[in-house]
Amino acid sequence: MENFRFSMPTEVIFGKGTEKEVGAATKRIGTRVLLHYGSERVRKSGLLDAVIRSLKEAGVVHVELGGVQPNPRLALVKEGIRICREKKLDAILAVGGGSVIDAAKAVGVGVPYSGDVWDFYTGKAKPTTMLPLGVVLTIPAAGSEASQSSVITNDEGSYKRALDIEVIRPRFAILNPELTFTLPTYQTAAGAADIMSHIIERYFTNVDHVDLTDRLCEATLKTVIHNVPIALAEPSNYHARAEIMWAGAIAHNDLLSTGRVGDWATHMIEHELSALYDVTHGAGLAVVFPAWMQLTYRHDLKRFVQFAVRVWGIEEDFAEPERTALEGIARLKAYWKSIGLPVTLGELGVPTDRIEEMAERAVSYGPVGHFIPIKKREALEILKLAS
Amino acid sequence: MENFRFSMPTEVIFGKGTEKEVGAATKRIGTRVLLHYGSERVRKSGLLDAVIRSLKEAGVVHVELGGVQPNPRLALVKEGIRICREKKLDAILAVGGGSVIDAAKAVGVGVPYSGDVWDFYTGKAKPTTMLPLGVVLTIPAAGSEASQSSVITNDEGSYKRALDIEVIRPRFAILNPELTFTLPTYQTAAGAADIMSHIIERYFTNVDHVDLTDRLCEATLKTVIHNVPIALAEPSNYHARAEIMWAGAIAHNDLLSTGRVGDWATHMIEHELSALYDVTHGAGLAVVFPAWMQLTYRHDLKRFVQFAVRVWGIEEDFAEPERTALEGIARLKAYWKSIGLPVTLGELGVPTDRIEEMAERAVSYGPVGHFIPIKKREALEILKLAS
Repeated sequence: MENFRFSMPTEVIFGKGTEKEVGAATKRIGTRVLLHYGSERVRKSGLLDAVIRSLKEAGVVHVELGGVQPNPRLALVKEGIRICREKKLDAILAVGGGSVIDAAKAVGVGVPYSGDVWDFYTGKAKPTTMLPLGVVLTIPAAGSEASQSSVITNDEGSYKRALDIEVIRPRFAILNPELTFTLPTYQTAAGAADIMSHIIERYFTNVDHVDLTDRLCEATLKTVIHNVPIALAEPSNYHARAEIMWAGAIAHNDLLSTGRVGDWATHMIEHELSALYDVTHGAGLAVVFPAWMQLTYRHDLKRFVQFAVRVWGIEEDFAEPERTALEGIARLKAYWKSIGLPVTLGELGVPTDRIEEMAERAVSYGPVGHFIPIKKREALEILKLAS
Repeated sequence: MENFRFSMPTEVIFGKGTEKEVGAATKRIGTRVLLHYGSERVRKSGLLDAVIRSLKEAGVVHVELGGVQPNPRLALVKEGIRICREKKLDAILAVGGGSVIDAAKAVGVGVPYSGDVWDFYTGKAKPTTMLPLGVVLTIPAAGSEASQSSVITNDEGSYKRALDIEVIRPRFAILNPELTFTLPTYQTAAGAADIMSHIIERYFTNVDHVDLTDRLCEATLKTVIHNVPIALAEPSNYHARAEIMWAGAIAHNDLLSTGRVGDWATHMIEHELSALYDVTHGAGLAVVFPAWMQLTYRHDLKRFVQFAVRVWGIEEDFAEPERTALEGIARLKAYWKSIGLPVTLGELGVPTDRIEEMAERAVSYGPVGHFIPIKKREALEILKLAS
């Protein structure tokens, strides 16, 4: 186990009807907020009205900025920064999924920074402060509601880049599973793949003696695996939706990283799919991860056997453990297929004519991944295995 | 799953050599600290000197107050409050195990309160503020390093009472597993029973659909069960000590309570053993818990079967699940015996002539426990089963 620091200061307010507490919660972080959201779906559902009513009751002034797209764009982030400065806003409230929250984080670090906010995403500068951020979550997937991550796409050049730093963690996050009852099947499934991928990225580590976090990872994965088919069959099943929603926050708040170093090559490669073809992030991960596993499993066969046995309940083949490892990978792929996700580039709608370019771009800052360093050759191999 | 709020703002600083960071960490919460500790063991080991050196380097002034006993006493808490006021101290640094940290929490809430600090432990008043508290942990057991709990014993009448409230959570906690290498066998084992009991208290709930937290509980329990025999056989095994230490904090920081209501009757009954006979808390729990289980398992047989199957790996007897449930209880008892703990009152050195009095005192504020309300009759039955 490696040395680590961990805290989880985001106040999670979880359960039925909790969106009604948003005014009081926001009041604790600011009095003039940017109300940031994505599509008009949050208005049509009545959620935006409920949030605005609660803000007004608490005496919080708000300025709306909607229009965040999946794979959120830098241009809108800059518009948010401009509005916050012009209207002298002192906090941000994000109502939506990971894209909205990620965009809100970028706005939040951008407002007090005199340079270009994109500097934080290229590593040119590090944010030290941000406008306080609150969240009302509508899609369990990205885990951004309690994470220190934000991913933004720069349209100029189609670059998708991540910022990971403690200062951007939200101050509070309202998680009401009822708000996810109306999520379409595909978004529920893609969200689940995103959650599972956050865990699997952490699971495949070269750090040994990480017993507790291994088991916490397995516990969270098994919960998602068990509950997603229930939520797909019964979209208004509160219990299943609640398990998925809480698992989504746990998967990415870095509890499961404590003492270990995750891989993250799959995320880097998927970012190139999303940047060029604007695919749903979770679906892209469902395509890339099994291919990454096929390329890397021999590097630590025991760990892949453990994944197969403990997560999927596969009986170990002690004589030929490689069979067990491969069965684990096959089960993951079959599971994602069973919940309606693509598992090949073709199924994802991504042509294979630009995979060389994607492989090159994925490693443009050097090799990616900690389990095995992935250079261009390996990235290309993974994309071929995913074809 | 029930609605809940959760955050874990305590900054955990975990790993080898981390006690050297105590000066810098303390500097962030105060400049004049009460350095609170228990026995002279921390001085003899050199830890206290190292801490004082680090404080001085950071420019933090300290006033020492040692002498905290296991089952920490109200009298010393009052002495701590007096010193903090007289010397105008603005923070507390606890160096030790759960008793020292619990005492430090009591001092911390007592300083800004004009009434008697015992009011907070009888429920007569609620603390709203406290002196900021930092911790250097030496014994993984109570989980007080990241919890919102404190248990204090009032010698006048031998009352042992708990305070549970968010405001008392430490601001930082330094956890270096190396500091636990010299722990005697019995303290390591009793600490493990304390950790396991914190999880088991949460596990046996009447709230249904708590899939994720069930699995997180099982993961943490299995980690402790696996690693304690290793640490007992090899006291300087860093990995085993690290797993136990991190598990101890997770077990009681309330992550494992999210969405559920724990039981806690066993703790209430054990408090009476400790109050009258000053036994080691973890050892007392090892005696009471199997007896509590024997009395209550029929209330939710399925949950006890799950405990047996998932935690102990027992193959379910589908025809006669009661056998599986009882085997789970027997395995817990056998495990505690195998690591050198008492599992009967006799082995604990507690005579049975006052069990009626203990049963009466345990329920002096009304029935205890949420799984099944334990009244005097049941408390007595548990103590008889433990005889």
